[in-house]
Amino acid sequence: MTTAPAQFKGPVLDLADRQGELGEILRERLAATVETFERELAPGSAPMRDLVRHVERYRGKMLRPTLVHLAAMAAGGHTPEHDKFAAVVETIHLATLVHDDVLDEADTRRQGATINALQGNEAAVILGDYLIASAFHLCSSIDDQSVALRVGEVTKTLCEGELLQLHHRDDFDLAEPEYFKIIERKTASLIELAAEQGARLAGANEKICSALAGFGRELGIAFQIRDDLLDLVGDQPVVGKDLGKDLDKGKVTLPVIHHLKQATPDQRSDTLKLLSDLATGKAHDRNPIQTALHMTGSIEAAQHAAATRLETARAYLAELPETPAKALLDDMAIEALKRDH
Amino acid sequence: MTTAPAQFKGPVLDLADRQGELGEILRERLAATVETFERELAPGSAPMRDLVRHVERYRGKMLRPTLVHLAAMAAGGHTPEHDKFAAVVETIHLATLVHDDVLDEADTRRQGATINALQGNEAAVILGDYLIASAFHLCSSIDDQSVALRVGEVTKTLCEGELLQLHHRDDFDLAEPEYFKIIERKTASLIELAAEQGARLAGANEKICSALAGFGRELGIAFQIRDDLLDLVGDQPVVGKDLGKDLDKGKVTLPVIHHLKQATPDQRSDTLKLLSDLATGKAHDRNPIQTALHMTGSIEAAQHAAATRLETARAYLAELPETPAKALLDDMAIEALKRDH
Repeated sequence: MTTAPAQFKGPVLDLADRQGELGEILRERLAATVETFERELAPGSAPMRDLVRHVERYRGKMLRPTLVHLAAMAAGGHTPEHDKFAAVVETIHLATLVHDDVLDEADTRRQGATINALQGNEAAVILGDYLIASAFHLCSSIDDQSVALRVGEVTKTLCEGELLQLHHRDDFDLAEPEYFKIIERKTASLIELAAEQGARLAGANEKICSALAGFGRELGIAFQIRDDLLDLVGDQPVVGKDLGKDLDKGKVTLPVIHHLKQATPDQRSDTLKLLSDLATGKAHDRNPIQTALHMTGSIEAAQHAAATRLETARAYLAELPETPAKALLDDMAIEALKRDH
Repeated sequence: MTTAPAQFKGPVLDLADRQGELGEILRERLAATVETFERELAPGSAPMRDLVRHVERYRGKMLRPTLVHLAAMAAGGHTPEHDKFAAVVETIHLATLVHDDVLDEADTRRQGATINALQGNEAAVILGDYLIASAFHLCSSIDDQSVALRVGEVTKTLCEGELLQLHHRDDFDLAEPEYFKIIERKTASLIELAAEQGARLAGANEKICSALAGFGRELGIAFQIRDDLLDLVGDQPVVGKDLGKDLDKGKVTLPVIHHLKQATPDQRSDTLKLLSDLATGKAHDRNPIQTALHMTGSIEAAQHAAATRLETARAYLAELPETPAKALLDDMAIEALKRDH
């Protein structure tokens, strides 16, 4: 049964709005994805449903389900299994956001805990586990066991990325290759999986699957570089979420790595002092660090790195036959190049 | 390949020691389970392997893998899939212990957090997720998709039990049926699954599978009642872990429920004051509450409830053909009746 687009409550990828027939199909598929998600999560107890409802606010543009469906359409066609798989990928993504919140809330507590914050934290641990279990439960109903194997593998990779990131907290010597290792694992791996399995479930051949995997991976890396950039220099009202959190948490990202490498010894020691004050809560103002990053051209360097990744992503699309879905995937990458939030 | 018993480093269920040939087979199977677990977890990064190594210390008597293997042997015979499934169940159990630690450490932090404790906490969230993902990954390699479906379902149930418990924290009006709902979900469901699927993977018929499910469920409930009892009145050096944690956390268990129901209004108000002082950290001594529980016969009442469950568990075994494995399952229940740690 196809759900009417009107029933879809979440925001869709902006570009779906302006793509005529394909945009409509995409909205239908995203609505079906949300419906599948809700059907999997609905039978829970009342307290669990309350928690799940909170999670709905985390749902953004549904990048991962969008990729699943566009990859399917670009690679051979949509199947009912795609709705399930898209919901699986989104559910795992939501679980990582919920558990990231635990790590974030833990941080808030550094500057003074409340019992309420604590209870919220405990509920968040449980909710994240419930979402992971729900994702795997739903995944096990897909008529191809290799999907669940890959989902399990990639979820392990996500955790590896999170742990690596934790290990490098307050590590101002973090090198670029290690930064990329972190974001490839914690972010790009699931986006790659969305595109790759979207194609595979459509019965595409290895060349197409691997091209779409490459597209997803590069897109995911670019998105994470952009996210990290926005956290440093984004305009809070435009982005719509708390910024400067990476600095608070001692998370070193690409512009900072670039800056510390380019800076003179004096600049470097000033910046290290700034970073350490921000990470220990002695300072809260992002302005001085923004000025420093601009002085070494580090913002532009990170923007360039993201743009390069997006061009690589687009190049992967050359392997695909010309279809409206392929054109929309290409538009996604072009839009991302322009995006400032 | 069968692993030599000598390679098995964890403690086995005590009773396996004194059961001749079957005890030896069981030790071999538990060694294979540990090997399967380690093979699944070994490819991780060095920091992840460090965390996993910590988890090894959580491994107790391997109740759940023991049940998988004994159920298999009592219901038709062992298959290589049983080693995988036993490792899956143990891995999920370990994940719940790791995430329980997060909840516990959060509690310790109520009386003053350290950054170290906090970092440990964040790593514990990630490690728990990694274990869940590993369990599902391994489970997806079992040649029967219905197993993964059931594992996903039961893991959701576990989370429901944890959430229900969290919701009833500091709820001194908790009624008995709600207490049983909590422990059935958070503890008994996975033990039931171990026994049930152990039989199912051995190709047993529905009657046998459901008898073993019942055995596991009742055994699990009895074990949790005993655990809760030990937390209240156990002898710390004998039990070998911190006790009185339920009181610290405002977790109301069977003896307390029984006591509050039996107590005179004056007794009741004294006990509520005691419980509240313990839960808020104003008091730390378990003695006054132990005295109160003894006055209303509440310790004995909970012991009786556990014993009744163990007898029900044993009754389920009547459905099984006479085998050495069935005798060993029966011994497990009899041993549990005697156990004081």
